[in-house]
Amino acid sequence: MPEAHGGIRPQELMQLGIDPNHIIDFSVNSNPFGPPPGLNDYLLDVDLTHYPDPQCYRLKKILSEAATTSVDCIAIGNGSVELIWACVRAFVSRSDRVLVVTPTFGEYQGALDLLGIQATEYQLDISNPNINVEEINNKINKIKPKLTFICNPNNPTGHVYTQQQVQLIAASCETVGGYLVLDEAYRAFAGLVQFAPNPFQNTIVLRSMTKDFAIPGLRLGYALADKKHIEAITAQCPPWSVSAMAQKAGEFLLVNSSKTERTITKTLELAKQFKRQLSSSGLTPMPSSTHYFLVNVGSATTIRRRLLDSYILVRDCSSFGLPEYIRISTRLPEENAQLCKVLAQM
Amino acid sequence: MPEAHGGIRPQELMQLGIDPNHIIDFSVNSNPFGPPPGLNDYLLDVDLTHYPDPQCYRLKKILSEAATTSVDCIAIGNGSVELIWACVRAFVSRSDRVLVVTPTFGEYQGALDLLGIQATEYQLDISNPNINVEEINNKINKIKPKLTFICNPNNPTGHVYTQQQVQLIAASCETVGGYLVLDEAYRAFAGLVQFAPNPFQNTIVLRSMTKDFAIPGLRLGYALADKKHIEAITAQCPPWSVSAMAQKAGEFLLVNSSKTERTITKTLELAKQFKRQLSSSGLTPMPSSTHYFLVNVGSATTIRRRLLDSYILVRDCSSFGLPEYIRISTRLPEENAQLCKVLAQM
Repeated sequence: MPEAHGGIRPQELMQLGIDPNHIIDFSVNSNPFGPPPGLNDYLLDVDLTHYPDPQCYRLKKILSEAATTSVDCIAIGNGSVELIWACVRAFVSRSDRVLVVTPTFGEYQGALDLLGIQATEYQLDISNPNINVEEINNKINKIKPKLTFICNPNNPTGHVYTQQQVQLIAASCETVGGYLVLDEAYRAFAGLVQFAPNPFQNTIVLRSMTKDFAIPGLRLGYALADKKHIEAITAQCPPWSVSAMAQKAGEFLLVNSSKTERTITKTLELAKQFKRQLSSSGLTPMPSSTHYFLVNVGSATTIRRRLLDSYILVRDCSSFGLPEYIRISTRLPEENAQLCKVLAQM
Repeated sequence: MPEAHGGIRPQELMQLGIDPNHIIDFSVNSNPFGPPPGLNDYLLDVDLTHYPDPQCYRLKKILSEAATTSVDCIAIGNGSVELIWACVRAFVSRSDRVLVVTPTFGEYQGALDLLGIQATEYQLDISNPNINVEEINNKINKIKPKLTFICNPNNPTGHVYTQQQVQLIAASCETVGGYLVLDEAYRAFAGLVQFAPNPFQNTIVLRSMTKDFAIPGLRLGYALADKKHIEAITAQCPPWSVSAMAQKAGEFLLVNSSKTERTITKTLELAKQFKRQLSSSGLTPMPSSTHYFLVNVGSATTIRRRLLDSYILVRDCSSFGLPEYIRISTRLPEENAQLCKVLAQM
């Protein structure tokens, strides 16, 4: 079984005799500049001796202003993955059909596994950044899914659905009486407005706060949807699932979001440069609108393993059904240069 | 609907014009001395820019030594409540019967609500600290529950099942082909060995690390059970549900657990003194083996509300089916004295 996710797994590395602390991690698509300065000092003052606010009221209030929506239309999750699982548990029964536009994030199917459901897939053409929405809609009209998952920008391809394309898909879902889960975990990295509201009905927009703000260690995501959908999602999340640390971090990061917007802009500039450098090294990064992208390396599993010897971690895309591809996320200039150098020597 | 849990809800207090930061919280049963010194400084160094280890390997390793069990027999949860919900999702179907020994923690029924199951209840006599295990076993033999929940020491009564009594209940559950979930969230506060192994088959022992170590803000709990049960529970928890902060905190707290053992011993001494003080003030604390206990105040909702005006929060036990009772947890001497003083004036 190929690993379902990127990121450092200390147990694997220790078994290989590799110190996890020395790894440069290109396998996770978070902001390489890290969180804005001052976060850790701010968190030092968080009072851990009280339960987190189970309603995440302050965080929702700030978020509701940023996303121009009501607090009743927001659910906060212990990472957006908790919300993905909650959507499946809230909206899907064992006998329902679910459509997943693939290759994509593995946790949509991961959540469906809980109900013993194998998603119907619509396979994107990974070499074509223009998504064929007509075909997706034909599939929706044909199988009438209770739930459809799309990831925008898509992971691992970095391809983007336009607002109009999402509108068309959302409309199809509504016509067949289904819901659309629009996972915008990497929204900011496609140069889109970070806290845009959710303009769609019967659509649950999911966003992560751990990618753009670079705090995957803390777990924080949110959903924007109609109040009744939010209530159904919240009912599937245990109380206090969002820690006080994560809530406070979220408050700090939202108030200081302009700093992060600047580092994301820089990251997208670095991504262009990085793709050019890789091309000069004889590799062919696939077109993407994000700071992460696919590269065909023949055998992803072999290359991932060999790069680990140089303390470099990339995402083996075998679990996406792409065993020839690795996914690389843009990091800081000297780290990107290091990866180019090591790959060129292989 | 009475509130299902204790703890500060900022939204409620702000609506009442009460600053949540000035509240003395007797409504939550955690260690009043707080976590051992050094925790916050230790957490300052946690790298939030990486995902948490999804396997919680280091924390499990330390815990496996403390509880003399294998890492495969441990699940780590985002608070023990995530594990309660996971047990229900892993072991119960809609058509199953579930037994809950009440009055007790509301999240057993909370988790069962997900499946539309109303638990069968065995009602304890709250005035009698000696639990009638024969009657509980009669109930088990009669209704043949797929799952039985007992909380030891029980919340909110603070009554304790002996090891032998638990053994008898576990045996009954096994005879009828069911599982026992033994929630030991407050184990240390009944003067029991904190990290004892789980000696029972078909029993899932749940423990919280947020009560004894006083970090409810972080969310951390664990389950001890046979490997196959642990796998079933883990499958119901989304990946990365335990944050890097919580994992690192757990590692620090386990290594420094002797300091916490001392503060728990002190807390149990303070509890005796506190109960005497309350009795002198004309109140009647119910017998308990823990630092928390019930007190009959006539109308819990009224008294809770009135105490809030003095910046004191107690647990209104209406949601336990005990509308005449408040639950009070022992805090530091000057805080306990303050509660006695305010209550005496009412």
